[in-house]
Amino acid sequence: MIVLALMAVATLSATAQQSLEWGQRPLQSPEINSDNTVTFRLKAPEAQHVILTGDFVQEQQGVAMTKGEDGVWQYTTPQALAPELYYYAFNVDGLRMNDPLNVYQIRDVNTVMSIFLIGTAEECPYAVGNVAHGTVQKVWYPSPTANMTRRMTIYTPAGYADSRESYPVLYLLHGMGGDEEAWSELGRAAQIMDNLIAQGKAEPMIVVMPNGNISQEAAPGEKAGSFAQPSFNLPHTMDGLYEEAFPDIVKYVEDHYRVKADKRHRAVAGLSMGGFHSFYLSANHPDCFDYVGLFSAAVMREPRDGGASAIYKDLDAKLARLFAAKPQLYWIGIGREDFLYDMNTDLRRQFDEKGYRYTYVESTGGHIWRNWRCYLTEFAQLLFK
Amino acid sequence: MIVLALMAVATLSATAQQSLEWGQRPLQSPEINSDNTVTFRLKAPEAQHVILTGDFVQEQQGVAMTKGEDGVWQYTTPQALAPELYYYAFNVDGLRMNDPLNVYQIRDVNTVMSIFLIGTAEECPYAVGNVAHGTVQKVWYPSPTANMTRRMTIYTPAGYADSRESYPVLYLLHGMGGDEEAWSELGRAAQIMDNLIAQGKAEPMIVVMPNGNISQEAAPGEKAGSFAQPSFNLPHTMDGLYEEAFPDIVKYVEDHYRVKADKRHRAVAGLSMGGFHSFYLSANHPDCFDYVGLFSAAVMREPRDGGASAIYKDLDAKLARLFAAKPQLYWIGIGREDFLYDMNTDLRRQFDEKGYRYTYVESTGGHIWRNWRCYLTEFAQLLFK
Repeated sequence: MIVLALMAVATLSATAQQSLEWGQRPLQSPEINSDNTVTFRLKAPEAQHVILTGDFVQEQQGVAMTKGEDGVWQYTTPQALAPELYYYAFNVDGLRMNDPLNVYQIRDVNTVMSIFLIGTAEECPYAVGNVAHGTVQKVWYPSPTANMTRRMTIYTPAGYADSRESYPVLYLLHGMGGDEEAWSELGRAAQIMDNLIAQGKAEPMIVVMPNGNISQEAAPGEKAGSFAQPSFNLPHTMDGLYEEAFPDIVKYVEDHYRVKADKRHRAVAGLSMGGFHSFYLSANHPDCFDYVGLFSAAVMREPRDGGASAIYKDLDAKLARLFAAKPQLYWIGIGREDFLYDMNTDLRRQFDEKGYRYTYVESTGGHIWRNWRCYLTEFAQLLFK
Repeated sequence: MIVLALMAVATLSATAQQSLEWGQRPLQSPEINSDNTVTFRLKAPEAQHVILTGDFVQEQQGVAMTKGEDGVWQYTTPQALAPELYYYAFNVDGLRMNDPLNVYQIRDVNTVMSIFLIGTAEECPYAVGNVAHGTVQKVWYPSPTANMTRRMTIYTPAGYADSRESYPVLYLLHGMGGDEEAWSELGRAAQIMDNLIAQGKAEPMIVVMPNGNISQEAAPGEKAGSFAQPSFNLPHTMDGLYEEAFPDIVKYVEDHYRVKADKRHRAVAGLSMGGFHSFYLSANHPDCFDYVGLFSAAVMREPRDGGASAIYKDLDAKLARLFAAKPQLYWIGIGREDFLYDMNTDLRRQFDEKGYRYTYVESTGGHIWRNWRCYLTEFAQLLFK
């Protein structure tokens, strides 16, 4: 009796009873069918037009859903979807909304999107596997250089807490508009590392995911003050301050975690703006990182507002020093449709002229998280071996 | 140039450009005005009726928003809102949706709600303060009793990582349908503890927030397999298995964290079903917890499916032993409109008849998170002093 009441009250307190139609099978959306086609449903009897948009939908403007007599709009993908994490939204008479039947959502800068995942962990490394899991921490560290206390996400692999071993460290950097939650949420970094390590494909390692916006302490909503709207347009993203303050991060990690604190056991990689940061961090600290990953990197030689910073000066001499020390891995990945493709081609041509060794992976697609999750999956398997 | 392109691509990749109307001031919702009234906005030119619902709206059916000539519906609260965390949603021609201009949302079991917060950390302890922050971890621990590896959330206070001290521990339990994310997200436990500790109102302590559904490894989406719909109706929630397996949690915490591992420095508290768990855990382990908190607790004597468990047997004798040992604090809090009010009144009458000492706090309101955040804020200040 009381148990039923507990359930009922909790349901009522949740503002609306979304999924249960009394006396009927509860509506489900998305429903991943046994053949990996996916069915979407939205109860909207008053709506005139409902459109489904998503990164798996070929038509840029989306596809029309069909209204049933029960007022439920429905759409099933014509083909099976490959194992992947997908985004989607509904457009109801011109109004974009997420799927009210799906609690799984993810924020990409200032947009929240409904998500779903196809495949088991064996098929898709972004799925939670039936494996030993690492610990994910939100840690605040002092940055004397930036004169603030800042937040970062740190993954320690399964077994870390019960071991006395020291571990190598991957510093994994996000792109413009991202923050210390980007790689752990959109990037599924913990799931990827859990699965690769459990399968013996990657070495157990610590993954450090800092906030690359040196003007902010932490992700929106996690710093003092009210819930501010996330922004792409932050100051000091590419003017050298972040790179100058980066040693504060390395110091905190090496002071507080059991790490192998030498070049052979440090990697730095990042996407887009984080690739830019990785490019300059590795060039400025040739004795620090033996593994470098540039994921769709903005490898600019004339960074915004960065003309004055020593970080961006004498690049050719710095690169010469870096490659003279023969890094274990210098990895460049980019999609053929990425707007930074030509910039990366230019960089590779310069590297080729100098005889600098690097590994190059060219994928399909553009400047998108699907590629960055793939790049992390490939890159992580090459580290610390 | 490239920086602008990076921003533009990232924005496009985010499916929709929600907030920016070119050449105009971006639409904002919610907008917290300087007098703490709040304005909500939704651009929906095709809609016929838009209703705002929320826990600050007096009218149960919500209030009508007004359409402007620009197709933007708007509503401003008639009064200033008191410092608090609030929930709301829009209802557009019968269809419930969250605010597309607000990235801040929170999941309560199977419903995702838009949220906002009124007040600075000085006014509202749920706000992020400009104070030293603790670390929040998602940790997997072995539970031999339940024969699985399970996930919990652990808060360590600011300074823990740089100290050699040992700390007291509060075990903080969620209600039916919740999981190890409930207290850290809906409950704002980390923000509350950060603020109280910084203000000198609470002792620095570790807060352990386990998953109280012993049939599951972890919160929905965090366990192996696909993204399942969260459910209120899980097996083994109140049949003794969770309480029997609880020592696995205490053991993991005491083996892996610097804790004061004695009764004087252990507290257990929980809301609703978690209050039920706290009631029986403390009664069954009179030498374990010196502080007990029952927040709107379901203090049933005949738990569902629990007849067979030794956990629920001989309650009177167990309570007699517990109170003979004179716990430092036995705290009972409930709202006058809570459907468990009479059950808690009965418990207090039994305690009074036996002469058991307890602290009683009666609040307004019902079986809601607003009360549980308040209770934690009050309870935490009484611990370990």
